[in-house]
Amino acid sequence: MTPAGEPLPPTIEWRRGRLRLIDQRELPERLTFVVCSTVEDLCEAISTLAVRGAPALGAAGAYGVAMAALGAPAVRGAARVRAAARRIVATRPTAVNLAWGVERALAALAAGGASAALEEAHRIAAHDVAANRALGAHGAALVPDRARVLTHCNAGSLAAVGYGTALGVIRAAAEAGKAPRVWVDETRPLLQGARITAWELDRLGIEATLIPDVAAGSLMAAGEVDLVVVGADRIAVNGDVANKIGTYALAVLARHHGIPFYVAAPVSTIDVSTRDGGAIAIEERDGAEVTSLRGVRIAPRGFRAFNPAFDVTPARFVTALVTEAGVVRPPYRRAIARLAGSAVRRVAES
Amino acid sequence: MTPAGEPLPPTIEWRRGRLRLIDQRELPERLTFVVCSTVEDLCEAISTLAVRGAPALGAAGAYGVAMAALGAPAVRGAARVRAAARRIVATRPTAVNLAWGVERALAALAAGGASAALEEAHRIAAHDVAANRALGAHGAALVPDRARVLTHCNAGSLAAVGYGTALGVIRAAAEAGKAPRVWVDETRPLLQGARITAWELDRLGIEATLIPDVAAGSLMAAGEVDLVVVGADRIAVNGDVANKIGTYALAVLARHHGIPFYVAAPVSTIDVSTRDGGAIAIEERDGAEVTSLRGVRIAPRGFRAFNPAFDVTPARFVTALVTEAGVVRPPYRRAIARLAGSAVRRVAES
Repeated sequence: MTPAGEPLPPTIEWRRGRLRLIDQRELPERLTFVVCSTVEDLCEAISTLAVRGAPALGAAGAYGVAMAALGAPAVRGAARVRAAARRIVATRPTAVNLAWGVERALAALAAGGASAALEEAHRIAAHDVAANRALGAHGAALVPDRARVLTHCNAGSLAAVGYGTALGVIRAAAEAGKAPRVWVDETRPLLQGARITAWELDRLGIEATLIPDVAAGSLMAAGEVDLVVVGADRIAVNGDVANKIGTYALAVLARHHGIPFYVAAPVSTIDVSTRDGGAIAIEERDGAEVTSLRGVRIAPRGFRAFNPAFDVTPARFVTALVTEAGVVRPPYRRAIARLAGSAVRRVAES
Repeated sequence: MTPAGEPLPPTIEWRRGRLRLIDQRELPERLTFVVCSTVEDLCEAISTLAVRGAPALGAAGAYGVAMAALGAPAVRGAARVRAAARRIVATRPTAVNLAWGVERALAALAAGGASAALEEAHRIAAHDVAANRALGAHGAALVPDRARVLTHCNAGSLAAVGYGTALGVIRAAAEAGKAPRVWVDETRPLLQGARITAWELDRLGIEATLIPDVAAGSLMAAGEVDLVVVGADRIAVNGDVANKIGTYALAVLARHHGIPFYVAAPVSTIDVSTRDGGAIAIEERDGAEVTSLRGVRIAPRGFRAFNPAFDVTPARFVTALVTEAGVVRPPYRRAIARLAGSAVRRVAES
């Protein structure tokens, strides 16, 4: 199932006109796949988190547009594709990469038709893996030998098309012989850390220990954490970062303990239309994700729960952004404008 | 099952020579009871958390000694009771109240035999409820009208013989017409917040919303938390507080956001033999409590987990201690010495 030497299968793969996704709802119990033949299949897969993670959603969104375009009739097809694109974008409002991938595929479609949209999706997918490898190499330079690295949620191969962002940094450090040791935040409510990050690190053979999210602060106080690295779902032009709920608290705790706090994300995560974190819509998910767990109810019947999927970490808590174009340190505004500009140029040239 | 007007049954009750405990492992699904006839039954109930919470463990420990003494033969009985006392204390190393309750019952036993030990256990149980009501009244004065109060774990009626400590403060505020609204930290890994605190607040009719622990920081940043109140498992003479894992991070976050952070606990939680938090042994529990949840595995098979049951919050993060003898503010050392001394006197006089 996995090519020799590659411990993790691709998260997203186009196969004979359909999109095959690792079904992340089933991990770590089973490595199974969801095959999407229609935009409806894909929207269902995205909203139930069969596929998740900002970079993965970028590619998924582009493939979704391609799928709609390939299946649309010549007459009045354009309106149907645009409607499909809107449905895809609406599934997850916080991750900017989803809208970005959809926009790129729509632009290619307008310029060259359905096959151009599909080629663009392929290009995004291939670029994602290459960008993550580059990002990982830049980030690995920030990781001391035998560093104890804390990460939250899953910003790994499964949050991307492959390799990973925050886990890409850890993976590149491991490949460089630095033997990092990872504290894996379990990441309630949906346990992406316990289920997915732990599964990835296990497959990669990287030393790791799972912790309840609540243990991160006292581990920092005990001097057991050398650095924190997380991914991002959206980065505003001032450097504010939207990421999985709990990231903000980790950033405050890291600052309090003098621990570097890194955000690893491809340049596509920067949203040039978002001035600062206050402008980022935070997706609120069903309270049932908090009051029950894998089908088992863990709170009194009907008890109200608040379930924001993300939070915003102000730029001042971010020691550095790790991107495929290099490591960016504060002040962020000018550096981010430069990065975003170069990304626009790269897209235009590609 | 519950006396009229009292929404919660007693956590611990002596009934015809046996100790009846609410089985907290079964909440919120079922309100059931464990009946302990032997010290072995009780040790099992304590170590599996059928009964938990520092004040409850104080009474449970005393009843355990009484149970051992009542069942021990006259000849060589004393050695058997001492061995039973050691077994009880060893079940949970962090909560000082357990050892305190055991010691008090042993002292009564030495002075007046088995029936005196049982009377001492009854006295501890009755004093606990009265102390919590007094503590609640003192603490309620710190709660503004319509305050949004965040609490962690369960420091409620079920962590005590009745009424509760941190929840006692909230309950007293509600009884005083202040209509507090509660953010309930679910409290991974064992979900005492989701399962037990939520159940208690539901029965008490106090407005409450469950949150994943990771959401507390961003709620504070959004101005949605007016104060934090938690219980304690041990308070050192310098004011450092051992409490459920996650408490320390909440305290740091509360300080960062300028939010009062209160610790509510009876004076019996002060350990005069503990100089500071560094001297408190932190119980480490089975990693399986993190890697699986209510029988469902949530991490890869065999994945290592770190599962400390408690952490230590330095006194400098504690805005005030709320005790039955009043609200104590920094500097703590002298005030705590005074409190502990008066408690010793009260015990001697009782």
